[in-house]
Amino acid sequence: MRLATLRDGSREGALVVVAKAGDRRAAAAAVAPTLQRALDTWERSRDGLEALARRLEADAEFGEPLDVNELAAPLPRAYEWVDGSAYTNHVRLVRKARGAEPPADLLTNPLVYQGGSSVLLGPSEPIALGDPAWGLDFEAEIAVVLGDVARGTRAAEAERCVRLAMVANAVTYRGLVPAELAKGFGFFQSKPATAFAPFAVTPDELGAAWRGGRLFMRLRSTLNGVVVGDTETGPEMHFSFADLVEHIARTRAFSAGTVLGSGTVSNAAPERGVSCLVERRALETIQHGAPLTAYLKNGDRIRIELFDERGNSPCGAIDQLVTA
Amino acid sequence: MRLATLRDGSREGALVVVAKAGDRRAAAAAVAPTLQRALDTWERSRDGLEALARRLEADAEFGEPLDVNELAAPLPRAYEWVDGSAYTNHVRLVRKARGAEPPADLLTNPLVYQGGSSVLLGPSEPIALGDPAWGLDFEAEIAVVLGDVARGTRAAEAERCVRLAMVANAVTYRGLVPAELAKGFGFFQSKPATAFAPFAVTPDELGAAWRGGRLFMRLRSTLNGVVVGDTETGPEMHFSFADLVEHIARTRAFSAGTVLGSGTVSNAAPERGVSCLVERRALETIQHGAPLTAYLKNGDRIRIELFDERGNSPCGAIDQLVTA
Repeated sequence: MRLATLRDGSREGALVVVAKAGDRRAAAAAVAPTLQRALDTWERSRDGLEALARRLEADAEFGEPLDVNELAAPLPRAYEWVDGSAYTNHVRLVRKARGAEPPADLLTNPLVYQGGSSVLLGPSEPIALGDPAWGLDFEAEIAVVLGDVARGTRAAEAERCVRLAMVANAVTYRGLVPAELAKGFGFFQSKPATAFAPFAVTPDELGAAWRGGRLFMRLRSTLNGVVVGDTETGPEMHFSFADLVEHIARTRAFSAGTVLGSGTVSNAAPERGVSCLVERRALETIQHGAPLTAYLKNGDRIRIELFDERGNSPCGAIDQLVTA
Repeated sequence: MRLATLRDGSREGALVVVAKAGDRRAAAAAVAPTLQRALDTWERSRDGLEALARRLEADAEFGEPLDVNELAAPLPRAYEWVDGSAYTNHVRLVRKARGAEPPADLLTNPLVYQGGSSVLLGPSEPIALGDPAWGLDFEAEIAVVLGDVARGTRAAEAERCVRLAMVANAVTYRGLVPAELAKGFGFFQSKPATAFAPFAVTPDELGAAWRGGRLFMRLRSTLNGVVVGDTETGPEMHFSFADLVEHIARTRAFSAGTVLGSGTVSNAAPERGVSCLVERRALETIQHGAPLTAYLKNGDRIRIELFDERGNSPCGAIDQLVTA
């Protein structure tokens, strides 16, 4: 099933179940008023939400018309946002461009950082440009929403912690990254609020495209109407979401509603394009000695959308305007 | 006033107002069922909570007896936990012990990291030792709970964002820190769940001890009944909480309920002792060439408590057992 959060003036918004066609929504208040509450009570709420989803398919008169512009992020705020860097091509490229080696344990030790989660942007909320020297970039990613995760959870048991899949734009101020990383304490100021596509979908809704703790679809990034990336999300995700769960749960537990990101989707084949501008700049630097592509500027529009093999869009589109 | 959260089997617990004597509590459900809800609606809920606090003082029969063992962390989970390192003596000492210079901009550029916040420990919840080689340490800190913070909030306006003060134990696996910092992505695995003292208090309750965005009291850390630190929390907090808010809000906004930590309270005068073991080990290394103090072991008991000049304990005590 597909879940979304309707902006209703409250901080958490109102949980709705969305028809497969994406044209209608059913209020889920009787089951769980918010997505967080549904996740907190998943064993009880799941059946009720699925019943609403079935009724939306069976009865074309059921529910209300859906306007994606009325939707917030599925979780307008979350108790944790942990972002990985599971596509090792991205790490290799970015390091190569600055003349650095990738970490020696790149293939065995996942890179993750803890991001801010009290303000998460909806699919069409504008991105603040900030100081143009901060070098605003998008980052198209897959993310999952977890149920409760016990400390010490191993990868083999971790896949059952995955409740929902989402698409994220983990916006980054590239110009602020070097100083933050030099401090060693993480990306703090270089990571403004992350945005999410409108629909959060259960793994069963994704069918065979969800397997081995990875999502096998295409993630398309379009800048001002021009496709800049049409990347495969599955084959090159070196660490699965299950691997990432094992990594983050080594020393602590996580509450239901934790959002876990894949890191920028990145493919080695150059014809697949990029899911962030810094990668294109890295390729340009490797080829020409300097980047040619500029970072985002006022008025730019970035669209990020996941597609299955039949061209369906399970999570809907992120479509954000950059504003000064 | 003083607020606390009663463990009631729910994820958020039940908000209670606590009498000044710490012996009684009044259920706040009619005003706000949880502390997060109170923070979300502070302009409306504050008066109702204060009325309960006044009634607890006026009527010795009002409320229920308080048992601190029934209390969770004031926020059993929070939307963000951001921890600073505002006591520069701590940074200088730890770096000196490993032969490193403090950062050149130590006095102008705050160090902060984003911590995990979906599972926060109550005052008497045990600390998991984990692998003894991980080097478990406590860190006694002051923390504040913020109201909504707009992006770009400046220090001069930030103090009005402070809703509550708390005491934290930002537990750290010292042995995991170097590898995490080498990755540059933050402390991730080296920071298990943080614990909090039972009472969250409004700044007005702290009187003149709360000024200039700092708390001026004594923070006492006791390990297995022996005082290891009795530190001044005010004079050496180089960056105030207002400064820290300006720093973290440079590129993004924060929702009400964000918890912001001071970092380990640390005084230059050695007779004040330490608020974490790594500092004592640093002093030993500087003096003797090697640390003598061991990290925490199974069965150790760490107690952390804030005292005002009359010996009152506004936040109550953290009292945690280390368990294998």
